[in-house]
Amino acid sequence: MAAARPAPLLKDELDIVIPTIRNLEFLEMWRPFFEQYHLIIVQDGDPWKKIKVPDGFDYELYNRNDINRILGPKAACISFKDSACRCFGYLMSKKKYIFTIDDDCFVAKDPSGKAINALEQHIKNLVTPSTPHFFNTLYDPYRDGVDFVRGYPFSLREGVPTAVSHGLWLNIPDYDAPTQLVKPLERNTRYVDAVMTVPKGTLFPMCGMNLAFDRELIGPAMYFGLMGDGHPIGRYDDMWAGWCMKVICDHLGLGVKTGLPYIWHSKASNPFVNLKKEYNGIFWQEKAIPFFQSAVLPKDCNSVEECYLALAGEVKSKLGELDPYFVKLGDAMVTWIEAWDEVNNSLGTKSAKILPNGTSKKA
Amino acid sequence: MAAARPAPLLKDELDIVIPTIRNLEFLEMWRPFFEQYHLIIVQDGDPWKKIKVPDGFDYELYNRNDINRILGPKAACISFKDSACRCFGYLMSKKKYIFTIDDDCFVAKDPSGKAINALEQHIKNLVTPSTPHFFNTLYDPYRDGVDFVRGYPFSLREGVPTAVSHGLWLNIPDYDAPTQLVKPLERNTRYVDAVMTVPKGTLFPMCGMNLAFDRELIGPAMYFGLMGDGHPIGRYDDMWAGWCMKVICDHLGLGVKTGLPYIWHSKASNPFVNLKKEYNGIFWQEKAIPFFQSAVLPKDCNSVEECYLALAGEVKSKLGELDPYFVKLGDAMVTWIEAWDEVNNSLGTKSAKILPNGTSKKA
Repeated sequence: MAAARPAPLLKDELDIVIPTIRNLEFLEMWRPFFEQYHLIIVQDGDPWKKIKVPDGFDYELYNRNDINRILGPKAACISFKDSACRCFGYLMSKKKYIFTIDDDCFVAKDPSGKAINALEQHIKNLVTPSTPHFFNTLYDPYRDGVDFVRGYPFSLREGVPTAVSHGLWLNIPDYDAPTQLVKPLERNTRYVDAVMTVPKGTLFPMCGMNLAFDRELIGPAMYFGLMGDGHPIGRYDDMWAGWCMKVICDHLGLGVKTGLPYIWHSKASNPFVNLKKEYNGIFWQEKAIPFFQSAVLPKDCNSVEECYLALAGEVKSKLGELDPYFVKLGDAMVTWIEAWDEVNNSLGTKSAKILPNGTSKKA
Repeated sequence: MAAARPAPLLKDELDIVIPTIRNLEFLEMWRPFFEQYHLIIVQDGDPWKKIKVPDGFDYELYNRNDINRILGPKAACISFKDSACRCFGYLMSKKKYIFTIDDDCFVAKDPSGKAINALEQHIKNLVTPSTPHFFNTLYDPYRDGVDFVRGYPFSLREGVPTAVSHGLWLNIPDYDAPTQLVKPLERNTRYVDAVMTVPKGTLFPMCGMNLAFDRELIGPAMYFGLMGDGHPIGRYDDMWAGWCMKVICDHLGLGVKTGLPYIWHSKASNPFVNLKKEYNGIFWQEKAIPFFQSAVLPKDCNSVEECYLALAGEVKSKLGELDPYFVKLGDAMVTWIEAWDEVNNSLGTKSAKILPNGTSKKA
């Protein structure tokens, strides 16, 4: 099947959201691929620290002071000292598509040695349909040179709109702290040349390192939770978003793809620090995942916001028994939707409030 | 994660089942990989035709006369003039594992140019667990050099026993007749270096060209249906087995993998002939797949046989409305289980009856 429309997208269709930039090398390496797009940088930690963005990039930068000023009391739903803060960028964007990437992710090479344009592949994934209702054994049937195989129902070949494109990582795999500790030297060297739809009813661990999504289709579900400073958990921001998002996509008939593109994950984070952040999550996910696997959203929830609020209620009532943290998280999920609504739907009041604090720049 | 046990298997653990051999080149090409195993050849069509098996192979060959003699009236459940006849070989085998392959499938090469030992990869797939309850984004976590990613519940990392390994095809993809007609020149050139579990609750089009399974775990579900001579459908034998098998694996907590190994599919079958065989199936699958997607087996069905008989009843009562063919098929499913029982569980009477008609050979 041929692609529905060609990449690349126009600048006014996609924002790149980056949670803090700790090294300049990162943007220089991505310059050929990112320079044509607008960047939203969400500076984590000390708001007074100056992040230097190289010349030639078109960007806006939000620090904690901006977040507090723009959201007021609702700013409590945005995590601090954790990359979960990135979802503030999703809130501020006005574009159809978001690509988010960590600053330790560099340009990878394909087996022929060619630099991989990750963004272009994400766009291809997002603008072609997904196939969550039946598995195609030759993977994404919308790629050039491949199609649906014998036995694939014709009524399902139009697929469903794709909401999320989950990319992978060469070099340092995205392991939890226990696996990092047990296998400190393991590297991912296998380039798997495939994109596939995560089937309906199946959950997966969504990593936020190299991720793109259709903000108009699924944006309000991409909340990265309460992590880091003041909370008993870290490194589960993307996982939380992934579980919520997938349940909602399944309910609304939207698709999620995983596979290509690869980025080069340059360095492993400290496994001892990670263990401290993760230990509650490792325990809680044993209850949270069955919760999401059996979650059924009310039939009359027809928008992402409605679905998300229904899920927030379930989180409070069912996971709240596990730990009071989930009651706070459920409340924060509601606050997030209120913030989304305020920033995105109240056009009249928004414009004056949401300008970043003098740190935007037109390239 | 390391493999549970190393390949290769011993000769007394695996049989290779081949539905007819129309060219000698086939076995010569596979000689380095097949010679150490026992072959079961199920000769389709004219039973008087002589199939020449090259020297050095250890085999037994069954033709239609053998099938009729061994199964008596129950032979009606074994298709004639269709590769569905291969399931008779599954019935006759006494081994734990079966590998079945078509005679137009040759040895493929991996991207480095090395000949692929398909059998070895199937065995690796079968002796390591599957992960149907949660998707691992780096694919099969039991391969060397890879593991479960962050966010994968630890309680699910032991996986479940693998019942089926579904391999793929380079060169001629396994397309239906309409797609063959529309894309006569499309070739599969993409080597996707991955094995993955088909998630629980997800159906897929199982192709019989390059397929291995654990006969002890799932054998009675691998019935290839009523196809070809005397029946209004062909080329849905493997699909039918795949749907039935997957529903039963999901019910019993068994796993199904797809991906590696590749074989080289040498020639496309005639799309006009295929269309004639397929046209009913293309229509019927639109009803049959939702039937299997919503099929729920009784909780007290604890064996493959029990599950299969329950499914046969559902096929008759629910798909019988679609066409009387499905009533016949449901009856044949019951006959197949009776035959399986007779051949496999009545050890006393079996030995004299089941010897092939003078066409077996010890290498």
